[in-house]
Amino acid sequence: MITPQTGKGLPRTLQTLRGFRDFLPGEALKRQYVIDKIKGVFERYGFDPLETPALEYAETLLGKYGDEADKLLYLFEDNGGRSVGLRYDQTVPLARVIAQYQNDLPLPFKRYQIQPVWRAENTQKGRFREFLQCDIDTIGSESPLSDAEIIDCSLSAFKLLGFSGATMLLNDRTIFDAHRLTKKEIIILDKLEKIGKNEVVRQLIAAGRTDAVNLLDALQSAKPTERLWNIIASLKNLGYKEDADFRFDPFLARGLDYYTSSIFELKTDQYSAGSLAGGGRYDRLIGQFSSRQLPAVGIAFGFDRIMETLNELSLLPESTTTTQILVTVFDPTFTKSSEAITTRLRSAGVNAETYLEPVKLDRQLKYADRKGIPYVIIQGPEEMEKGVVKLKDMKAKTQEELTVDAVIQKLCP
Amino acid sequence: MITPQTGKGLPRTLQTLRGFRDFLPGEALKRQYVIDKIKGVFERYGFDPLETPALEYAETLLGKYGDEADKLLYLFEDNGGRSVGLRYDQTVPLARVIAQYQNDLPLPFKRYQIQPVWRAENTQKGRFREFLQCDIDTIGSESPLSDAEIIDCSLSAFKLLGFSGATMLLNDRTIFDAHRLTKKEIIILDKLEKIGKNEVVRQLIAAGRTDAVNLLDALQSAKPTERLWNIIASLKNLGYKEDADFRFDPFLARGLDYYTSSIFELKTDQYSAGSLAGGGRYDRLIGQFSSRQLPAVGIAFGFDRIMETLNELSLLPESTTTTQILVTVFDPTFTKSSEAITTRLRSAGVNAETYLEPVKLDRQLKYADRKGIPYVIIQGPEEMEKGVVKLKDMKAKTQEELTVDAVIQKLCP
Repeated sequence: MITPQTGKGLPRTLQTLRGFRDFLPGEALKRQYVIDKIKGVFERYGFDPLETPALEYAETLLGKYGDEADKLLYLFEDNGGRSVGLRYDQTVPLARVIAQYQNDLPLPFKRYQIQPVWRAENTQKGRFREFLQCDIDTIGSESPLSDAEIIDCSLSAFKLLGFSGATMLLNDRTIFDAHRLTKKEIIILDKLEKIGKNEVVRQLIAAGRTDAVNLLDALQSAKPTERLWNIIASLKNLGYKEDADFRFDPFLARGLDYYTSSIFELKTDQYSAGSLAGGGRYDRLIGQFSSRQLPAVGIAFGFDRIMETLNELSLLPESTTTTQILVTVFDPTFTKSSEAITTRLRSAGVNAETYLEPVKLDRQLKYADRKGIPYVIIQGPEEMEKGVVKLKDMKAKTQEELTVDAVIQKLCP
Repeated sequence: MITPQTGKGLPRTLQTLRGFRDFLPGEALKRQYVIDKIKGVFERYGFDPLETPALEYAETLLGKYGDEADKLLYLFEDNGGRSVGLRYDQTVPLARVIAQYQNDLPLPFKRYQIQPVWRAENTQKGRFREFLQCDIDTIGSESPLSDAEIIDCSLSAFKLLGFSGATMLLNDRTIFDAHRLTKKEIIILDKLEKIGKNEVVRQLIAAGRTDAVNLLDALQSAKPTERLWNIIASLKNLGYKEDADFRFDPFLARGLDYYTSSIFELKTDQYSAGSLAGGGRYDRLIGQFSSRQLPAVGIAFGFDRIMETLNELSLLPESTTTTQILVTVFDPTFTKSSEAITTRLRSAGVNAETYLEPVKLDRQLKYADRKGIPYVIIQGPEEMEKGVVKLKDMKAKTQEELTVDAVIQKLCP
């Protein structure tokens, strides 16, 4: 894997911005593989795709996420003097869409969205300034069955990707309401895993919450809300195991302002630097855009953390190209016949390419090797005479003489 | 199709920015269908995916496209005071990537890239401020076979999408060099189709080109360059027909600065407001990033114009959802059994959903109809007794009694 260069010595025009990344073919193919799997599960559960613009009016984004998050927005003035901002998540643009097209959408509206988002974060392991989110959300249903479906769909996707031991932690923001936690206090609590209990208590006290110790004790012994009980019952019905697959965690906080009730986060021992997915219910966000309030619940997958973990677990395909065959050109007089072979292969559905430059055969083979193309075809005067080609298997380092038809049968059985 | 709202009366938070669009499920599914087809052809020809960041250092982008284009860049200062810009095309980021990772890439390097780009253009028919480009490029080959392969791959993609009568216009910038055309004059010539010959002559004269009439006459009788002859020969070898599939056009100009030799544009009678794809050879762009100069050739498909044309020609699938079956809930006591049916369908590979809210059956059917779900399952006490379900075909308005296994066999034959 080639990591992005942000070396200080390089001119800027040879760097990506810090927190931004290039994905060369090997990495891009792995990403495509995971996206396809995730999309397949989302569609299996009845979610349909939505796309929204990278840029929104700044006022669409501001005041929805909380003050801390608002500072991380990429805001600027466009050439027409409008204040605009880059997509920070996919939930607020969804809420705008729901309010804007409400008469044209079937309700409940179940959509998935897989697009990059931008946050001016401090970069660190697993945290980038441009990263992909994979969201599912259900708008217009208050039923705990919707929450359970979001969780079910998420657990299915993680299982399909090869994760084992993924657990969805569940909590309910109304528990915090009962203890009169402010937004600021929720953000402190959200750091529990990162900074530890002592530091959370210290920060809560510093924020004026003098009963911090009692508060944490009270949360420790909190019981699931009615909504959570219903979600848990539904998950059990679906065959999920408490503790292994899901677990009530009264300390789970989530950082964003817009959650109103159930919240969830997916954790696995296979990734230690945070959660791999997070979401919850936000029944009052759409009302910030429209006079019509609509209940809503959803989750966002942290695609880059998923990729990182799957990479470490070697659960991703290793191919660096989709090309199956390189057709070499024996010498320039063979260009036409080599191209004809390539055209036949392509017509039969084989991903094939002719080597384009007039260079020696061993340089052509080196190219196939470097690009990772599994097969090479060579046709010199002898093979042409016999109406066959030499098919080299680059990995097994074997070769055989075959007709082009036989090559096609071998590769498209 | 629902068009984006930019009505003056609406609050900004209920609008997309002018030139930016939402794609609701029906439209998003059509886009996905076309992207998949295009990707399939790109990979058939041996191109592999690359992704680059939405933001680049401003100096990476500036001075590559020409003064006119530079004005259309979305440039701003990020929170760290860096001058950054949104991706304007996929060619300049590719040139940066080639220079940055040159030792890690196989040469020739053949990549495709399908990402949005941003241009602060005046919006008009077929011109947006955020739009998708689909590019293929071959880096490190000077051979006219590379140019021909790019054209061959493009024509194949357009044919597969259902276009008929797509013609690739060919020209060579070195013909302009021979007539000492300046960058400014090339941009005037590029407007020929839009503003007509008289106006081009007027503007050329105004720009100091007093021999404008002679110049146009000279171009009219220009002959293809050696590179163009070779490209044309290669295309003929591949079975393409001159005039129908490709044609030398000495007036074809292309607006961007970085082209050095062959240029091409794909036109069709089916789309009148411009070209559907455009590209050419840019053998001196990578040298702007690196001491190592590398020849390069490529093309960009105008995805949105392609979508517009395919929509008009009714060449796109009409489905507004990927969900195949809605499993209704007869009354709340049937929730568990309905969910069990949905789970069985999903396990068998059917895209299915349970209706989540406790409402009457006819509202559930209305939802299926509105979302465009082709089949609905109903299981009341009678059907449960018999161990069957009612399967409603929403389009044919018929229904039959089947076991769930029989439903699966019907939908996954």
